[in-house]
Amino acid sequence: METLTLKSPFDMHLHLRDGEMLENIIKYTAQNFASALVMPNLELPIVSVDLAVAYKQRILEACKKQGIEDFMPLMSLYLTPSLTEVELRKAKELGIFILKLYPKGATTGSQSGVKEVLDSKILEILGIAESLGMVLSIHGESNGFVMEREVEFHPVFEVLGKSFPKLRIIFEHLSDYRSVALVEKYENLFATLTLHHMLLSLDSVAGGMLNPHYFCKPILKTKKDQEALLQVALSGHSKFSFGSDSAPHLRNAKEQKGAAGIFSAPILLPLLVQTFESNRALEKLETFISYNASKIYQLPLSKKNVRLCKKPMIIPQECYGVVPMLAGETLEWSVA
Amino acid sequence: METLTLKSPFDMHLHLRDGEMLENIIKYTAQNFASALVMPNLELPIVSVDLAVAYKQRILEACKKQGIEDFMPLMSLYLTPSLTEVELRKAKELGIFILKLYPKGATTGSQSGVKEVLDSKILEILGIAESLGMVLSIHGESNGFVMEREVEFHPVFEVLGKSFPKLRIIFEHLSDYRSVALVEKYENLFATLTLHHMLLSLDSVAGGMLNPHYFCKPILKTKKDQEALLQVALSGHSKFSFGSDSAPHLRNAKEQKGAAGIFSAPILLPLLVQTFESNRALEKLETFISYNASKIYQLPLSKKNVRLCKKPMIIPQECYGVVPMLAGETLEWSVA
Repeated sequence: METLTLKSPFDMHLHLRDGEMLENIIKYTAQNFASALVMPNLELPIVSVDLAVAYKQRILEACKKQGIEDFMPLMSLYLTPSLTEVELRKAKELGIFILKLYPKGATTGSQSGVKEVLDSKILEILGIAESLGMVLSIHGESNGFVMEREVEFHPVFEVLGKSFPKLRIIFEHLSDYRSVALVEKYENLFATLTLHHMLLSLDSVAGGMLNPHYFCKPILKTKKDQEALLQVALSGHSKFSFGSDSAPHLRNAKEQKGAAGIFSAPILLPLLVQTFESNRALEKLETFISYNASKIYQLPLSKKNVRLCKKPMIIPQECYGVVPMLAGETLEWSVA
Repeated sequence: METLTLKSPFDMHLHLRDGEMLENIIKYTAQNFASALVMPNLELPIVSVDLAVAYKQRILEACKKQGIEDFMPLMSLYLTPSLTEVELRKAKELGIFILKLYPKGATTGSQSGVKEVLDSKILEILGIAESLGMVLSIHGESNGFVMEREVEFHPVFEVLGKSFPKLRIIFEHLSDYRSVALVEKYENLFATLTLHHMLLSLDSVAGGMLNPHYFCKPILKTKKDQEALLQVALSGHSKFSFGSDSAPHLRNAKEQKGAAGIFSAPILLPLLVQTFESNRALEKLETFISYNASKIYQLPLSKKNVRLCKKPMIIPQECYGVVPMLAGETLEWSVA
């Protein structure tokens, strides 16, 4: 049987939640990735180093319960105006070097987010982060018309890109083809790409009957956007790394409350392989999911290799009450 | 108290369904409008004159049960390739002069629709309809990307507009600002406008949490589209008449199955008055909801006047299991 080994895959944008959900879903990522950048937008947001350290401990314990000991969660700090230099130094010393900035109200768990990104207090914090060599990860959306929010946020990236030339800034989950040029424009600007934004469009949400399971923020856009993002990933472009933005919402939260987020964790590696293979770009896959992240975030590659084999994977209809991306469909590859 | 009387309001695009739903909701329209053009896309589509006559009878009986005797349903025939000249002549003689064309799969109840609009059989039927002085009403959407479907359908209107210069063709529920110029381009082309397309955008569906109650076809578009359509209505433009496209779906069908359609019937007149008044265009309201339809469809004005008073209307959360547009909100005007 055809097999394929991926060296040290990284998922640079992941939602793991907490408690029972964390314990249920951790395996989907921890078995398949060497490391993942864990988002801090819990119900009680991870706004301090102590909270981040305790959360990391819970994640590692959940891994241990599953018998997984070769997965390293990378923690991020929720950026609020209350962050101090002392706190940032403490974070850095403990290996927590990623700040996540949410504009208030932009997405799930962004209620504690920043009202004005270019506020003097925030800029002061970013100056400290720059001097400490930290990374700034941003959910880049305005509060304007849903299809234009990402582009409307570009001016903020322009200001930050110029103001903090030594701060590595990550434009998370790119969804609009016009953002690619922006990322290329500033040396210190990088981006993550999700699988759903490169494989789906708004048609998956609203083209037929309304489908809440493909509703996410930033919203899925046009086929032109989708195709452009796919091509960037397939090219192995050095400024773009893989970040799934996999987010588990219970079926009820999706169907009754219209929560935003797509749960892709159970299918990421098989779908990545299938996508790169069917586009004859398999030789770029490790660049995209391993080497680029290693360079951008200055992460050492892990010794963890993940082996896949060309054996069909039937995607379950539900995983612990969560409907995964492409539920019920069949992929060509499985994790061995 | 301030009052206002509207002469012979017409709703030129309405879904009444059948059976219990029809009996429940008929009053919302029949009390407030002189006449309404009833769409033929029932589960068993109205594909023959006999079906239309029987359906009209059921509507009139439902009115009678509510004690309403001054409402006139205007019937339409679902256009299929099986329609014959004999059937069309019979329709015309019985006062049924509107053919409704659905591209197959475009919206609710379009499974029996037309696969290829420019098919020779369809063109033959349209030629007969033209010679009989009938009206062709079209759900104008391609099967392409959801936000571009209306514009992608323009070429079909161009062909029909040129090929059948004496056939009055109605571009239903305009949703895209680019369609306005198309309607103006051909003397025989007209359009209906809904309230929801001139007051809401995609933000109402997907801007916050996903909201199935504002999901409709054609999908709500950008604020630019919304504003352009509103301005056309406020201007009283002679080629545009009011057609609500009010469509009752049970809460469950909206929330569980993602059915497309907005139920606006209970609030149409108060919301129309409020919209025109707040935009200082109240003097154009009768042009939009009465005179334009009368001219375009060659309908005599009815003697029915509807009086409103400036007394708040609290919109119910639910009407017979259906969530109305703006549920729970308050309007400034009520039907007296």
